[in-house]
Amino acid sequence: MNYQPIIDEIYEELLPSLNEGNVANYIPELANINPLQFGISIYDINGNSYNAGTTDKTFSMQSISKLFTCTMALREVGDEIWGRVGLESSGHAFNSIIQLEQEFGVPRNPFINAGAIVITDILQEVFKNPEMDILEFIEDISLNENIAFNIDMATSEESCGHRNSALSYLMKDLGNLNGDVNSVLKLYYKHCSLAMTCEDLAKSTYYLINKGVGVRGTRILKERNVKRLNSLMMTSGLYNNSGDFAYRVGLPAKSGVGGGIVAVLPGEFTIAVWSPNLNKAGSSMAGIKAMELFTTRTEKSIF
Amino acid sequence: MNYQPIIDEIYEELLPSLNEGNVANYIPELANINPLQFGISIYDINGNSYNAGTTDKTFSMQSISKLFTCTMALREVGDEIWGRVGLESSGHAFNSIIQLEQEFGVPRNPFINAGAIVITDILQEVFKNPEMDILEFIEDISLNENIAFNIDMATSEESCGHRNSALSYLMKDLGNLNGDVNSVLKLYYKHCSLAMTCEDLAKSTYYLINKGVGVRGTRILKERNVKRLNSLMMTSGLYNNSGDFAYRVGLPAKSGVGGGIVAVLPGEFTIAVWSPNLNKAGSSMAGIKAMELFTTRTEKSIF
Amino acid sequence: MNYQPIIDEIYEELLPSLNEGNVANYIPELANINPLQFGISIYDINGNSYNAGTTDKTFSMQSISKLFTCTMALREVGDEIWGRVGLESSGHAFNSIIQLEQEFGVPRNPFINAGAIVITDILQEVFKNPEMDILEFIEDISLNENIAFNIDMATSEESCGHRNSALSYLMKDLGNLNGDVNSVLKLYYKHCSLAMTCEDLAKSTYYLINKGVGVRGTRILKERNVKRLNSLMMTSGLYNNSGDFAYRVGLPAKSGVGGGIVAVLPGEFTIAVWSPNLNKAGSSMAGIKAMELFTTRTEKSIF
Amino acid sequence: MNYQPIIDEIYEELLPSLNEGNVANYIPELANINPLQFGISIYDINGNSYNAGTTDKTFSMQSISKLFTCTMALREVGDEIWGRVGLESSGHAFNSIIQLEQEFGVPRNPFINAGAIVITDILQEVFKNPEMDILEFIEDISLNENIAFNIDMATSEESCGHRNSALSYLMKDLGNLNGDVNSVLKLYYKHCSLAMTCEDLAKSTYYLINKGVGVRGTRILKERNVKRLNSLMMTSGLYNNSGDFAYRVGLPAKSGVGGGIVAVLPGEFTIAVWSPNLNKAGSSMAGIKAMELFTTRTEKSIF
Repeated sequence: MNYQPIIDEIYEELLPSLNEGNVANYIPELANINPLQFGISIYDINGNSYNAGTTDKTFSMQSISKLFTCTMALREVGDEIWGRVGLESSGHAFNSIIQLEQEFGVPRNPFINAGAIVITDILQEVFKNPEMDILEFIEDISLNENIAFNIDMATSEESCGHRNSALSYLMKDLGNLNGDVNSVLKLYYKHCSLAMTCEDLAKSTYYLINKGVGVRGTRILKERNVKRLNSLMMTSGLYNNSGDFAYRVGLPAKSGVGGGIVAVLPGEFTIAVWSPNLNKAGSSMAGIKAMELFTTRTEKSIF
Repeated sequence: MNYQPIIDEIYEELLPSLNEGNVANYIPELANINPLQFGISIYDINGNSYNAGTTDKTFSMQSISKLFTCTMALREVGDEIWGRVGLESSGHAFNSIIQLEQEFGVPRNPFINAGAIVITDILQEVFKNPEMDILEFIEDISLNENIAFNIDMATSEESCGHRNSALSYLMKDLGNLNGDVNSVLKLYYKHCSLAMTCEDLAKSTYYLINKGVGVRGTRILKERNVKRLNSLMMTSGLYNNSGDFAYRVGLPAKSGVGGGIVAVLPGEFTIAVWSPNLNKAGSSMAGIKAMELFTTRTEKSIF
Repeated sequence: MNYQPIIDEIYEELLPSLNEGNVANYIPELANINPLQFGISIYDINGNSYNAGTTDKTFSMQSISKLFTCTMALREVGDEIWGRVGLESSGHAFNSIIQLEQEFGVPRNPFINAGAIVITDILQEVFKNPEMDILEFIEDISLNENIAFNIDMATSEESCGHRNSALSYLMKDLGNLNGDVNSVLKLYYKHCSLAMTCEDLAKSTYYLINKGVGVRGTRILKERNVKRLNSLMMTSGLYNNSGDFAYRVGLPAKSGVGGGIVAVLPGEFTIAVWSPNLNKAGSSMAGIKAMELFTTRTEKSIF
Repeated sequence: MNYQPIIDEIYEELLPSLNEGNVANYIPELANINPLQFGISIYDINGNSYNAGTTDKTFSMQSISKLFTCTMALREVGDEIWGRVGLESSGHAFNSIIQLEQEFGVPRNPFINAGAIVITDILQEVFKNPEMDILEFIEDISLNENIAFNIDMATSEESCGHRNSALSYLMKDLGNLNGDVNSVLKLYYKHCSLAMTCEDLAKSTYYLINKGVGVRGTRILKERNVKRLNSLMMTSGLYNNSGDFAYRVGLPAKSGVGGGIVAVLPGEFTIAVWSPNLNKAGSSMAGIKAMELFTTRTEKSIF
């Protein structure tokens, strides 16, 4: 199927409303981005690329990076990670500390902040040079050898990340964080600052629609772990907005406050969108609209 | 695809472990059921039936009935119902009262008890004779004109339903229950007591895989509302066990403490299983195993 | 010490501000009361009475009655009651249901609604005719043989007491309510509707300042249980406003949404005030002010 | 009144049971203390001292120091501090993080850890050299010019204080902590490590029974703020064990996990006890027993 006309149409349609919503203003470096940008990339199971709008400009992955770090942890450590982080949706905002105390420091899933920090702790235990390994992994799955962290972004987030420090110290207190809090958080902010384009992002998630085999034809993840990640994205990929997104779009997805969203239809395509203005739940407004239009018009969703 | 050999095999395989888990003992009438029973029915998009085990014996729908009452409410009232009940997973046990107080009496979704009671309240407002209308609706979608309530079961549940009374009075206090509490709960226990077979159940959910059109060829629900129900089943159909089920089985589903589970793969098939012994989260142990084996062997799931 | 000039002065001083605050509007029968009324009565350890304002008109005891029912339960059953209701302040609003669920149906103290309902349940178990026994008890401790329930008030509260029904059914579910919910609540609303004057109220709490011996010279309560009640009034007598009251007034006290407050200084005096307009925490605004002025000017408080 | 015979008797009586309870084992430095020690000091309004047991050996003030820092903050800043910390009992354990999130970073009172950290933040804002000023203040009110911090203790606590870091970062995130988290916590652990004897402690709280005037005859605090502190000690001095203590002992008090408790009867006496073994709520077991015996035998309490 040729997706080009559909995404061109969606692009035209959304341009007038890109000013709706707000950029993430709690991270200084994100607050300065021109919000009137929009890109959409499709990468299908046969390796065809479809792009509309600004799809070759990098933006900050933010929480989308949690998908990649969770993939790395599953690959290296396997199912043991589920002893330290859960599989259920949280029913609370992404940075809630209440549930964490009530559930003895085990975060509900790897996509809320506390869960992603535990995953980062695991990566730091497993890898000698985790920053380098993360970059190499992303370069491998995205076919792009120039992926980089945005150091200013990472520093900017660290300077205002008191809530994440609180979550981390609480987990440290409850025995679910092995590394030094500051060093784990430094790595966490680094991988959140990953800069990628829509095209990169669409390609890099190819293994999620291809039973675990990536764009280079090598196995990235066991098939059963792909199923697990896709189901986690389905139930928890957009925080406590996941139910609404599941209904509107009907695809497993992961969003980030940088304005990106990536979604997948196993066996068919990946889709990445980027537009910086966010809804109240912290996901790209135009991004959600674009995906809703896309699945409605193509009649392609998991439901 | 001929599913018969696969479900025959699964049936044989599960027989030795039917004694694992426990029947729901908090409802006296359910506690007396012989737990060593198992049935599995598939109904495919072309109208073919595949059955193994005890698929012609009725059992109590319990929470599965919430799927049907929610369908009826959506059909009669439409999207207005979402002002009185939410769309997100709860992150709490099915009968938790805490979230209800914190969120001003609006239950998280129509599948937790509080949400289903609100839906029952809506049906009682809309229909003159809601009991009869529910029966007629089920008979219509299941091709079976002998569906009945189990009055003993309903009475049994009512006698021990103090928690549901607490939830209802709290919603009454917070302005989200219009009818008389006792009369709403009477209807609620009635529809939970619906007695259907695995075959009935598989047929009755046909509209969820057929874009809203039921077994008789008539429209049961708008296509977009089918998508909504399927996504709700995906994120919230097995209470706070939904994430685990999504990973293991990868299908939208709804379970009940009577030991039934129904799941759907849009465009392909519905699948209903029944076995009374439950896991700690209140879903059929053998039922979950059967579905996991089925989607693994057929490689058919939404992910 | 002659308290008459001081309370006369306070009465004059407060008259202009009686219109501040609001009457309890969630109970229909209370909403109709003329709010511009005020009375203050002192009863000292030697049996002298001092009165200013409207001290001979009855008003509804509401939560103040919890002090009397708790006294009766302690007298009849003794320390066993602390297995069913706690001794600590709740830190939550008087009708919160959250804590009750988290703490398995055992209310924090006998002065929050849930706790008082458990106490009522105990009285109903112990007495054959609890209504009559409550009236006789109050008549005994107040030297007034014409104490009565206000049936209209009780009916009015019952009609809107959904929250109390929710609390009761939750406790029933959690195994901490033995009687029939409706019948326990009927008795609860009855004793809340007790109609007494400021003078009655001041006299009736004499046993709390006289080591357990009441106005008629007979023992009402063991001395140690008087200490217990006084400390409970200190930490929990004004719900989650107790800390502020402790600082302003510095006396153990109990308030009710009927606008009454009673406070005691062991060995010295009891003080009862009534004025229907309430602050946000549900206690009489002019009542608190009057008590603050009284303890400041007499320099008599427990601190 | 000569209290010496009474406290001698209590000392003898308690010796055999000093092994009950446990020392605070979560702070390494406290875990090493010989638990079989006991001291009791009374200081009356006329300046007479009564001592029994080990009353001249220093122990760690821990949470008792919160009483002194709160006094200093009230003295320097006045009622403005109540905008940053509440006056009500918390109803939760001393280090709970849940309530803090729900109430937007404003701790319930200055005696729970979060509240005391805010008070420390205030002291650090107000004083150029807060450590020195704290020492000078304690030396002034205790008549002892050799008060010192226990640096090993402070370091020991800092090394395991992850929960306090979590509380602090959460307050930082919610805008209720102005200083640098690490530097505020360093000062907090310092003042918690204050080493004083029972005699020092009894003398140092003299201003709480003498309308704000201390042992040297100089005003330490306004009279109204003394009332405030005493009422806070009454409702919140022993964390969520305050209700039980209020009943048993009937005096405003403050305890610390070092095994000390200080209590006051305004106009009459202060009483300090020390014995390292703690009950589950973190207060000295023998200390509570000693105070209960003392107020029972002297019939002196506020109730």
